[in-house]
Amino acid sequence: MNDCIFCKIIKGEIPSTKIYENEDVYAFLDIAPINIGHTLVIPKKHFVNIYETPEDIMLSMMKATKTISKAIKSELNADGINITMNNDLAAGQIIFHSHIHIIPRTTDDGFSLWHGKRPYHEGESKEVASKIIQAL
Amino acid sequence: MNDCIFCKIIKGEIPSTKIYENEDVYAFLDIAPINIGHTLVIPKKHFVNIYETPEDIMLSMMKATKTISKAIKSELNADGINITMNNDLAAGQIIFHSHIHIIPRTTDDGFSLWHGKRPYHEGESKEVASKIIQAL
Repeated sequence: MNDCIFCKIIKGEIPSTKIYENEDVYAFLDIAPINIGHTLVIPKKHFVNIYETPEDIMLSMMKATKTISKAIKSELNADGINITMNNDLAAGQIIFHSHIHIIPRTTDDGFSLWHGKRPYHEGESKEVASKIIQAL
Repeated sequence: MNDCIFCKIIKGEIPSTKIYENEDVYAFLDIAPINIGHTLVIPKKHFVNIYETPEDIMLSMMKATKTISKAIKSELNADGINITMNNDLAAGQIIFHSHIHIIPRTTDDGFSLWHGKRPYHEGESKEVASKIIQAL
């Protein structure tokens, strides 16, 4: 897409610090890292999010994500790694070109995760599950 | 593993609300959901995290994650979905059996994402990238 920042990065029109590249995917350092080494894995073709990205491309993204995560873990002495993909504005997606975040974590980095909001009411979980299942 | 909660869920020794299952993976509702419909996708065999989970199993997990995400998005009227995998205690992993979270989000659910901590110093991003790259 003409006005997509990530498409411009792939074309080399916007500079990036490349980590990895193959036929399907490109990986580079996030310029606003949550922690140093925070890497983004994106498809070379423009897809908006997980719903639109074809399965084979999602699998290429995950394959690269696993490889890069292991390298980040060992080379940057990360105590842990969050793999995150935000889909839609309501989930925090800002650039509407499908991307997986690889975020190195350290024990004392000060970030905390969300916690459970409320348990299910009696019978509610089965009702929710049946809604999801009938759409699979 | 004998004392792993997720292994017990797979064996049926601990009840769960099943969403999906195939040869490699099992998906069920998180009992402490961040939002209603929060689903976990786990491998049937015990692997600790992304570093240890074999590539073919990670790909099965991602394939299921994409399918379930689309179903959650449409059936639960989610405005967005976060896909998250926490690896190691420092990254918020609590159950040490590899798992992907599928978290439905709504515009007004009150959760906010982490933001960038600091930009790279001059030359730092290239240095960090070269460390990662040499381990790929």
